[in-house]
Amino acid sequence: MSKILRKTLSDAVIVGAGKMVRVQSGSETETGYMSDSGMSAPDEPTTIFPPTYMVLVCSRTISNEAFMWLLNKVRGKRRDGGAELLVRRQPHKPGEGVTLHVSASKIKFLEVAEELELKKRDREGLVREFAVSQLEEFLAEGMHVDDLLTTAERQHIVRHELENIRALAEDDHVPGHDGLGLYEGQSIVQACLHWELLEQMFPLHDSETLDNFGRKWYWALFRRQPIEEIRLYFGEAIALYFSFLGFYTSALVVPMILGFFQLFMSTGTVAFFCMFNVLWVTVFLEVWKRKCSELAFSWGTIGMTSLDDDPRPNFHGHMAVDPVTGRFQPQFPRWKTNARLYFVSLPIVLLCMTGAFFVMLASFWAEEYLVQVRRTTGLRAGAVLVLMPSIVYTALVFVMNLYYRRLATRLTEWENHRTQTQFDRHRVTKLVLFEFVNNFMSLFYIAFYIQDMAMLKYQLAIMLIVLQAIQNFQEALLPLLIKYYGNVVAKYLSYLTFEQLLGFEGGVAGVEAAAPLLKRQEPERRSPEQEEALDALLAGVPALDADDPRIEPALREGDMERYEGTYDDYLEMFVQFGYVFLFSSVYPMAAFWAVVNNVLEIRCDAFKLCRVFQRPMAKRVKDTGAWQRAFEALGAMSVMTNCGLLAISPELRHLKPDVGAVEWVLVFVFLEHLLLVTRHILHKAIPEKPEWVRVALAKINYQSKRALKNERMLKSRRQLLQRKYRTIHGPHKRTQ
Amino acid sequence: MSKILRKTLSDAVIVGAGKMVRVQSGSETETGYMSDSGMSAPDEPTTIFPPTYMVLVCSRTISNEAFMWLLNKVRGKRRDGGAELLVRRQPHKPGEGVTLHVSASKIKFLEVAEELELKKRDREGLVREFAVSQLEEFLAEGMHVDDLLTTAERQHIVRHELENIRALAEDDHVPGHDGLGLYEGQSIVQACLHWELLEQMFPLHDSETLDNFGRKWYWALFRRQPIEEIRLYFGEAIALYFSFLGFYTSALVVPMILGFFQLFMSTGTVAFFCMFNVLWVTVFLEVWKRKCSELAFSWGTIGMTSLDDDPRPNFHGHMAVDPVTGRFQPQFPRWKTNARLYFVSLPIVLLCMTGAFFVMLASFWAEEYLVQVRRTTGLRAGAVLVLMPSIVYTALVFVMNLYYRRLATRLTEWENHRTQTQFDRHRVTKLVLFEFVNNFMSLFYIAFYIQDMAMLKYQLAIMLIVLQAIQNFQEALLPLLIKYYGNVVAKYLSYLTFEQLLGFEGGVAGVEAAAPLLKRQEPERRSPEQEEALDALLAGVPALDADDPRIEPALREGDMERYEGTYDDYLEMFVQFGYVFLFSSVYPMAAFWAVVNNVLEIRCDAFKLCRVFQRPMAKRVKDTGAWQRAFEALGAMSVMTNCGLLAISPELRHLKPDVGAVEWVLVFVFLEHLLLVTRHILHKAIPEKPEWVRVALAKINYQSKRALKNERMLKSRRQLLQRKYRTIHGPHKRTQ
Repeated sequence: MSKILRKTLSDAVIVGAGKMVRVQSGSETETGYMSDSGMSAPDEPTTIFPPTYMVLVCSRTISNEAFMWLLNKVRGKRRDGGAELLVRRQPHKPGEGVTLHVSASKIKFLEVAEELELKKRDREGLVREFAVSQLEEFLAEGMHVDDLLTTAERQHIVRHELENIRALAEDDHVPGHDGLGLYEGQSIVQACLHWELLEQMFPLHDSETLDNFGRKWYWALFRRQPIEEIRLYFGEAIALYFSFLGFYTSALVVPMILGFFQLFMSTGTVAFFCMFNVLWVTVFLEVWKRKCSELAFSWGTIGMTSLDDDPRPNFHGHMAVDPVTGRFQPQFPRWKTNARLYFVSLPIVLLCMTGAFFVMLASFWAEEYLVQVRRTTGLRAGAVLVLMPSIVYTALVFVMNLYYRRLATRLTEWENHRTQTQFDRHRVTKLVLFEFVNNFMSLFYIAFYIQDMAMLKYQLAIMLIVLQAIQNFQEALLPLLIKYYGNVVAKYLSYLTFEQLLGFEGGVAGVEAAAPLLKRQEPERRSPEQEEALDALLAGVPALDADDPRIEPALREGDMERYEGTYDDYLEMFVQFGYVFLFSSVYPMAAFWAVVNNVLEIRCDAFKLCRVFQRPMAKRVKDTGAWQRAFEALGAMSVMTNCGLLAISPELRHLKPDVGAVEWVLVFVFLEHLLLVTRHILHKAIPEKPEWVRVALAKINYQSKRALKNERMLKSRRQLLQRKYRTIHGPHKRTQ
Repeated sequence: MSKILRKTLSDAVIVGAGKMVRVQSGSETETGYMSDSGMSAPDEPTTIFPPTYMVLVCSRTISNEAFMWLLNKVRGKRRDGGAELLVRRQPHKPGEGVTLHVSASKIKFLEVAEELELKKRDREGLVREFAVSQLEEFLAEGMHVDDLLTTAERQHIVRHELENIRALAEDDHVPGHDGLGLYEGQSIVQACLHWELLEQMFPLHDSETLDNFGRKWYWALFRRQPIEEIRLYFGEAIALYFSFLGFYTSALVVPMILGFFQLFMSTGTVAFFCMFNVLWVTVFLEVWKRKCSELAFSWGTIGMTSLDDDPRPNFHGHMAVDPVTGRFQPQFPRWKTNARLYFVSLPIVLLCMTGAFFVMLASFWAEEYLVQVRRTTGLRAGAVLVLMPSIVYTALVFVMNLYYRRLATRLTEWENHRTQTQFDRHRVTKLVLFEFVNNFMSLFYIAFYIQDMAMLKYQLAIMLIVLQAIQNFQEALLPLLIKYYGNVVAKYLSYLTFEQLLGFEGGVAGVEAAAPLLKRQEPERRSPEQEEALDALLAGVPALDADDPRIEPALREGDMERYEGTYDDYLEMFVQFGYVFLFSSVYPMAAFWAVVNNVLEIRCDAFKLCRVFQRPMAKRVKDTGAWQRAFEALGAMSVMTNCGLLAISPELRHLKPDVGAVEWVLVFVFLEHLLLVTRHILHKAIPEKPEWVRVALAKINYQSKRALKNERMLKSRRQLLQRKYRTIHGPHKRTQ
């Protein structure tokens, strides 16, 4: 430790010499268990405030009492239910909400890192739980203690501490807002965000890193993605999405090459290639699982389980002693969640799926009818008319999706899952089922009911080439255009209450980007007396300098869109995956177009995250969760669809005209079963974790067991050597 | 601890008063880390020797040097590579091998129990790793320290210590047997058993418990099996087999009742019942998995994983530092095992399966040919002739099985799996694949190629009623009859070298039982000088009294058969399961006969274990391993076969004669897929472990983490409060 001590002290001198740092003692910087100096003294404004890790924007409607109460919770001592964080306010403009910059002391970060069991690589290269007492072991040669935690981790820590401010027994409501009741143990920040007393909570972008990402990532078309840097900046969830995207794209290269071959091949070989494709999907998904566990291992997220996770903020139940942790936490019986899931949510979801299916059928019927009408009457205008059902159907799907999304979120919320992971999994499952019907059912209908292969091929080509290009534009460029030129448009649009018309909140990215322009309702203002009182109160809160470089970004990013999570991005890949593999025997070129799209997609998504959205909250994940299963289900389905397509393909049928119809079907049923069994065997034979990860996990497990045992061993030896010797050593109770 | 101290001391006084025990100090009883008194003194014969937990029978051919070397290893100190066990010899008869009774001191048991991480239920009801220092916490109210470990566990401990006597660097060969080389770290007892220097190693039966089992278990037809007592006596593997058997039998009751209903129902309902059956199988297997994990949890075996297990004794490889434990252990790269498995074993197994399949086909062809011949020639003797192919086939299957079993064992041995669990799993998988062809292929042939449902029904009935009855007789009663009346028969048989004729060793229980009678070769005797030298040596080894009650059982049980493990018993159930469910739409009464058989089977197996075989070595398992998967595979297959049977059933076809042949097939293909998907959903939706087990495991995990953390926390606080304070608390390296 002494080496680090020396190094850090010398750093302090260097920095100190350049910047005139006054190291204080006894002030706010010393939070943590050491500062027992009583009340937190208002710190002097000249102390250098550490980087801002979270910006809290208070609403204009929050009462002064509530504001001060919240501020004191954030800065307060842990034993008083506070978060012990450091806070500076931005210079306040009358009539606007106060903006707070939140950070934490160095010790606080390390303490919470240990508490959260963050995994870090130690000097021996093992990734294990960080412990302050073993700090030295986690610092590689020449590593400063400040480099230990990434900014994503620091944001995670600050956010965790903010969200972990729980209502005490005496906090039965928000002061100054009598209507807003709290229960003991509720997350106060979450509640305030929910009631819009807090307008926003977001971390700040780092412009230097973003410029770096520009060079290395989204403008660099033929370069490996800097996954590790992405993780450090955006957190594990987003890094995992981009590695999946990259991995999937490179896995698509093989079907792409086969697709080119198929252009020049006989129909018999097409069947063979198609079978190969189907197995390739399986292998790809299994290998991805392995890669995923490698990543999760090196990120230290591999051991995450749903039972040791903290309950998610919106989880409710009666407060009781938790059977696992023994702490006082909200409890909700698992069987109730399951009952709600299986007896309410599941039927509703199935009903919605059936509804969507019939809407799809109706659009086909309408189209057929119009074609009929056009043929019989010979109308010229019929060409436009015939397109109407498709257009109406597309619009309907859009609207249905918006409503269904809200429904799915509400249902999942109501099911009351304990952890965020469970919540996400069940929400994604619901959404994916519905999207499956919307995106694929019409293709199934064309393929197996109408059996029009030319139409199927045409549809697939349109979806893969045109629609995906539009989507990319809509995702990354449209919001930017709206942002720069939107104010002009907004004037014209402001009269349109489009949102109320549809009744949605949240939704598809492109539309959402336009939402704040449309939503400019006037808030209830504070009275002048309250303003004065607030100013008086704010005088006691340390403020940032008016020229602090953090103020401008905080204001600018506060106006940016929020990134709602990786759901939409995965969904896009899911739909594409389905287009490519479900019908690959009909349209083998699909893989090529998918690769072209994905190379662009990576860059668009990257650009979007860096330039269009607020910096997202870092989220720790260990795998792709529900998506892995969704992709696997599509993989299994692709076996069936491709066998089915081959069975009904007239080209193949012509090769063996002497085989009876029943035998012909049986051959393909047999083939399908063979492929499904092969899939299953591949699934079982490829281990989920690579050997080295398993060995490393076993080693960590072994070592921690050993450590625990050695402690005990020492104790037991001492005990046995002392007085307890005779006890165990007496004569045997039973003799044979 | 003081309470136990008092209790144990008072016990000692009571026992001492009745039996004149002389409690010694410094003698052999004090093995373990406390006895540092140098050489182990030859103990006085009057000390009461604790119950025998293992009997070692030395061969007549072992040299005196080897015998003493082995004996010293067993009794020697741990630091000299010994096992620190207690040994008494039986009074020696010249010309015979020496029989040793092995036991251990109380402290030794507790020490090793901690080392082996045996899980025990503590006072709070949590099952966790036993630790000597926390002895008190594991003793429930009124529980004596001797009751803590079951006899099965004690045997396990003694066996572990015996098998863990490893060759040191200087032990390059067995003394007195220059040809028998050893490598460092090899298990000496295993090697001696392999070279037949040790004839047998077995634990002794406990006649009191056996009588109890008679009353409570195998003579009690309508009583719950005393699973917990079975576990305490026979160990986890056998207890798990019997709980599986019981659970399976009670699960069969539903298909049995449905089977009765079907006798009076229309063909349409039969189809429905059949579908129900298929799903029932899935639910049964999933629920069994849950039950299994409950059992494994309460037995403390649930956490067993292949990586922390010790390598199995026959595992070989170059000695190197183990990456997990850091100990010096044999290492063998996993990819080599996999390569051998996939590129050698798998093709061989597939070849054997194909061979067996063609033998089956040949028997059918021969039968067909003979029927033809009989019809054309009108021979009377033809009736017998026509049966010949079946008889020849049955005999061939028997012989093929014997050879294949040896092949499978050798292949698996050669693949060199690290742990016993892996070895068992791969051996069972190989055997099951072959048995599948032998037992079911002919039925598949009848059902789907000949499509003769009457014949299929007849075959199933024969197999389920007659064959199973014969098997039960052969398993439990035949060996007993041979034992009592065998000596007479043996005289006549001794000239027949039946075993050499077939070239088998090990095999089906009934035949094996006859083996010792057939195998009576004269061993090489020791010279008279050697005998004298041995007698002189033996004088220094403490002996049991000539009238010790343990001598007679040791001699008697040494002559009994060895129980080779649960493989044959599971296989029988596997075959029956296939008969019942694969073709349940044709022969719904199968379930009834299976229940009848199983009720008997439980008793026969129990009787066999208690009275026919040597007491088996206790084996710790956490689940049914490869069998679970084998049963699941049969379950999935039963979906396909039943759908297929229904599709070709003429009765069902008559109900809808207007449906086209292709549509008819498609309907059943669709039905099959629906059932398979339902199966898959059931498989995913039913969690493998019940909620309470998951919570309890999470709690244990949480507590041990917490314990480790508290230790660290205390350290880190101390460190931070002292001099390291400034280090972390210096100015921030980077400012924004």
